[in-house]
Amino acid sequence: MVTANLFREGMARLGAAVAIVTTDGPAGRRGLTVSAVCSVTDSPPSLMVCINRASRSHPVVLANGVLCVNVLNGGHEPLSQAFAGRRAPDADPFLGEDWRTLATGAPALASAAAAFDCRIKLAREIGTHSAILCEVEAMTVGSDADALVYFNRRFHHLPWEASA
Amino acid sequence: MVTANLFREGMARLGAAVAIVTTDGPAGRRGLTVSAVCSVTDSPPSLMVCINRASRSHPVVLANGVLCVNVLNGGHEPLSQAFAGRRAPDADPFLGEDWRTLATGAPALASAAAAFDCRIKLAREIGTHSAILCEVEAMTVGSDADALVYFNRRFHHLPWEASA
Repeated sequence: MVTANLFREGMARLGAAVAIVTTDGPAGRRGLTVSAVCSVTDSPPSLMVCINRASRSHPVVLANGVLCVNVLNGGHEPLSQAFAGRRAPDADPFLGEDWRTLATGAPALASAAAAFDCRIKLAREIGTHSAILCEVEAMTVGSDADALVYFNRRFHHLPWEASA
Repeated sequence: MVTANLFREGMARLGAAVAIVTTDGPAGRRGLTVSAVCSVTDSPPSLMVCINRASRSHPVVLANGVLCVNVLNGGHEPLSQAFAGRRAPDADPFLGEDWRTLATGAPALASAAAAFDCRIKLAREIGTHSAILCEVEAMTVGSDADALVYFNRRFHHLPWEASA
């Protein structure tokens, strides 16, 4: 029997990049911090992102049918907290950063390590979350920068160059 | 137009934990190194792993219907290379490490940072890969250790404690 607590303890050992998923469209503009993103295939360029169904962004993302995965760098820790709702919950987390639009209209963070602007191809409810398969329609790659990684329930900064 | 090269350039910016996916059963014992694993939900404990369909392990994993995701620590870099086929391709990469079985019979690495022993619930071909949804039937959590993370096309070691 694998309890939810034991599972989370194990998953804390799986280091993961931190990203902000944004969306915009008829259902409104929203964004949230996630750490469950993975590459699926480069042909066609596709990724998977898992979002908690209890999140206020969840229905908005699905209704708009588009999302942008903004991969964060080491300087984005405060932004990651803002989109996780850990600063003033009613403040607009989009304020104070430069955003652009690429193909779908979802906000792309100008300073992102990489931004993947996607159309949702498939969403499937699995327990508390939805697994969302996305095809990348446009993207940007940022300049070389440290990565922001979540591991052992803490933020870590990973240098662009490997340590010796 | 997002080319495969541009997509891979962007994905190189998404730091990811390194794991060895193993399987055993009627179709045989196999293992391969992956970096596309993500948590899906803790209820029921579920994860997603994406495997290249060209991999020799791919049909074996699907035929057995079970797999174990062994999350690696900083000391496992040579093992990761062995399961990526980057050492002697015909050598048995399982040799020289301690393996056990938990619930499904898939090999669990005794020294893993965490081992998630899973039954496959759903597999879907997406381009070059299969996205495989798994439910965790048993697991182990290792002692505190640095993480092995792949970022910017290199291995990095992430300290257990966050740097100040």
